[in-house]
Amino acid sequence: MKVLVVFAHPEPRSFCAAMKDRAVAFFSARGHDVLISDLYAMGFDAVAKAEDFAYRRDPDYLVYALEQRHAFETGTLAPDIRAEVDKLLAADVLLLVFPLWWFSVPAILKGWFDRVFLSGPFYGGRRFYDRGGLAGKRAACLITAGSRAHMLREGGIHGPLELVLRHLLQGTLGYVGFTVLPPFVAWHVPYVDEATRADYLCALERYLEEFDRLAPLPLPSLADFDELMRPRGARAETSGSDATR
Amino acid sequence: MKVLVVFAHPEPRSFCAAMKDRAVAFFSARGHDVLISDLYAMGFDAVAKAEDFAYRRDPDYLVYALEQRHAFETGTLAPDIRAEVDKLLAADVLLLVFPLWWFSVPAILKGWFDRVFLSGPFYGGRRFYDRGGLAGKRAACLITAGSRAHMLREGGIHGPLELVLRHLLQGTLGYVGFTVLPPFVAWHVPYVDEATRADYLCALERYLEEFDRLAPLPLPSLADFDELMRPRGARAETSGSDATR
Repeated sequence: MKVLVVFAHPEPRSFCAAMKDRAVAFFSARGHDVLISDLYAMGFDAVAKAEDFAYRRDPDYLVYALEQRHAFETGTLAPDIRAEVDKLLAADVLLLVFPLWWFSVPAILKGWFDRVFLSGPFYGGRRFYDRGGLAGKRAACLITAGSRAHMLREGGIHGPLELVLRHLLQGTLGYVGFTVLPPFVAWHVPYVDEATRADYLCALERYLEEFDRLAPLPLPSLADFDELMRPRGARAETSGSDATR
Repeated sequence: MKVLVVFAHPEPRSFCAAMKDRAVAFFSARGHDVLISDLYAMGFDAVAKAEDFAYRRDPDYLVYALEQRHAFETGTLAPDIRAEVDKLLAADVLLLVFPLWWFSVPAILKGWFDRVFLSGPFYGGRRFYDRGGLAGKRAACLITAGSRAHMLREGGIHGPLELVLRHLLQGTLGYVGFTVLPPFVAWHVPYVDEATRADYLCALERYLEEFDRLAPLPLPSLADFDELMRPRGARAETSGSDATR
């Protein structure tokens, strides 16, 4: 199995790095191929921009998604993007390891999605969610959070983590076709003692041991929607609300 | 009134730019002070990193939030961060104008939050949501989306926009204290004709005319939570679920 670990923390000795190291060690020890994209160490360029395309289909007006398609089809992707695309296309499992910043990923990882998740091979037209280009691969997030667990659950002050992260779990990973496993979260990390951190690493080890048996998060299926992506038949009352908004 | 417009689109002639221009013209024509942070034009650095701090409280181990506090208190913030912080602290209204990328903001705007929304003056300890440092200011998002409107509502394939954007509307803007207005969205932008785009700009004008009367999005109030941020009294059954997770 090929595992791509994408790591996005600016402190190489952080607890987040320790989680990344534990996951790498876990899969390596079991004979899997592990590749690491350490975005900070690579100095990964986070910003999707015109200069990403040396050979533009339209040099006068930038539509980023169309230039992505063009660059992919003509083999002219920027080398740093191409390298990440190749790793992703080869991987069976994607692990994202990051600190929760503003209830999302650090910008350097957001930029990795913006630049690497290509319109064309990864998604496009009616190819997304279960018809996305990366269908058949699995993805999971290993997260360090400053919040306490009870703050990110149903009834908690911020709401359930899976809902707060819907833009990532469903809207990004699920969108391109990944089967998305429930995230592993180490809570309250800046404030806990060494023993608790050690417990978190043990919990991570158990999570990874269960990896193949974890129930994926529910995601939309394109079969439930028509060609204009309206809910099919049974949900007539919902599509009827079109006129009210 | 001071209005800060933060714009994050790589194409200066995009429809998103036209929305930004319309908003700037609207507030300028009414005598308000309008400042613009055009993140792409500024080449804004999107990546929160050790080099943001020339005078570290701990040169050996980076805790970004603690260095932010230290740099703010000692007056040693990086000039590009300081400039944005000053604009924000002076503003009465923040307008974010951006294309919806991966159901969130472009990385360059995410990095603006990561670097500019300072631990310390903007939030910290029990100062967030209605006790956040920017309480009393208003924020709104003007968004261009590739999706059709029915795809981002209740029962739609992606779910309601306000829910998909909870990490931004509540978790970022609301968290630091902003009163958050419902977003303005131009749908299906890459695929619509010029007449529809003109209609969108008219709709934006009406949205801005209604600006002072728009009902803010509901956000958590710290008064409903105890000092450990557990729901108070009435919600005993929820806090009881602590042990089950």
